[in-house]
Amino acid sequence: MENKTLVEITTQKILNYIKEQNLQIGERLPNEFTLAEQLKVSRNTIREATKMLKSRNILEVKQGSGTFISAKKGLMDDPFGFSLLENKIKMTKDLFDIRFILEPYIASLAAQNATEEEIASIDQLRVQIEEEILNEGTEHLKLDQQLHTQIAKASGNTALYHLLPIINESIHLYNDNFTSEKKKLETIESHREIVNFIKNRDSLGAQQAMLIHMSNNRVSLENDTDANR
Amino acid sequence: MENKTLVEITTQKILNYIKEQNLQIGERLPNEFTLAEQLKVSRNTIREATKMLKSRNILEVKQGSGTFISAKKGLMDDPFGFSLLENKIKMTKDLFDIRFILEPYIASLAAQNATEEEIASIDQLRVQIEEEILNEGTEHLKLDQQLHTQIAKASGNTALYHLLPIINESIHLYNDNFTSEKKKLETIESHREIVNFIKNRDSLGAQQAMLIHMSNNRVSLENDTDANR
Repeated sequence: MENKTLVEITTQKILNYIKEQNLQIGERLPNEFTLAEQLKVSRNTIREATKMLKSRNILEVKQGSGTFISAKKGLMDDPFGFSLLENKIKMTKDLFDIRFILEPYIASLAAQNATEEEIASIDQLRVQIEEEILNEGTEHLKLDQQLHTQIAKASGNTALYHLLPIINESIHLYNDNFTSEKKKLETIESHREIVNFIKNRDSLGAQQAMLIHMSNNRVSLENDTDANR
Repeated sequence: MENKTLVEITTQKILNYIKEQNLQIGERLPNEFTLAEQLKVSRNTIREATKMLKSRNILEVKQGSGTFISAKKGLMDDPFGFSLLENKIKMTKDLFDIRFILEPYIASLAAQNATEEEIASIDQLRVQIEEEILNEGTEHLKLDQQLHTQIAKASGNTALYHLLPIINESIHLYNDNFTSEKKKLETIESHREIVNFIKNRDSLGAQQAMLIHMSNNRVSLENDTDANR
């Protein structure tokens, strides 16, 4: 066993407390004084442990109102350290190749496992993206990521639901804006097909529609990065 | 664009500096004073930004000797946010399903892209694993992870090479020891097949051999988690 500091032990105890009490996102942690009493450590130790959990995106402090369970669910902004890798064009392509493999599988799982609420929320995002594109808004890339994340959520695979947004986020980190007019129309078409297959519980259809969507995206990414060289 | 604080901007600037200077693991960052001059911010801002990068496992502070590039390469300790999840058995299965999709693809890429040195190192690990199993050693699970990581490296996809060990590590975090005698023999057989196909530059063969290997692993994981309930 490694030697752990008192702050590390206390951090783990607070984590255990959150799980035992089943505290949900947005719920408040007891104040320093109460926690210090309960865990039999000083308030200063509680303060340091809380800082650790804040830096791990597990807690968030709202000035004046207390410490709460963060909506980020302990997921770091760049947990895989992608931002330190050097060759960004290659990295973008490599990440995209992972999407190419995972997204069709995710779509096929979603067609099997999505709840009615999840399907409604997927469809709502699809409609929002169409409106955004038709009105030449600026939010459609963000909404696009949300749609793919929502499909990953509906897949029922928690690890994929955690992983996919990180991959997509990393891709967009390096390619803020690779959306041509042609791709916008393709996006509308593809999304309609994917969502319909999920609605109809057609796993194979959803898988293939997503594969086509990914193929089209990959081509436009390659054209873009070639042009930017 | 979101509003970024000065500390966040400075954090990004230090990251850029690390990349521009191509600082490697273990190399020292300039001291606070120099960085503050160079980035035109206060030493206090540098200190806060350094803290952020420390909490992201990008930097590490060695008392008395300075701030260095961390060997953790920005990889968080718990990148999937495991510590907050309730159902760990489900998470393990979910992660394994991702391996199930990615590993055959990785093997097929490795057959295409591996250098001769990479093939030699893959084969060496295969031999070590066989010896370890036959001598009833305790290192074969560790070596097994190294073999799969080495195949991911040989795939040429840096993102996969980065991602796969994290997934495998997370699986083993909760399933230390799910190796039956039957599985050991299967492991020897499968690894031989996979390595041979990679040697022969047979992508489809490597892909299918890895798929069979994954199928056998998944079954034994399911038996194990059932038994542990």
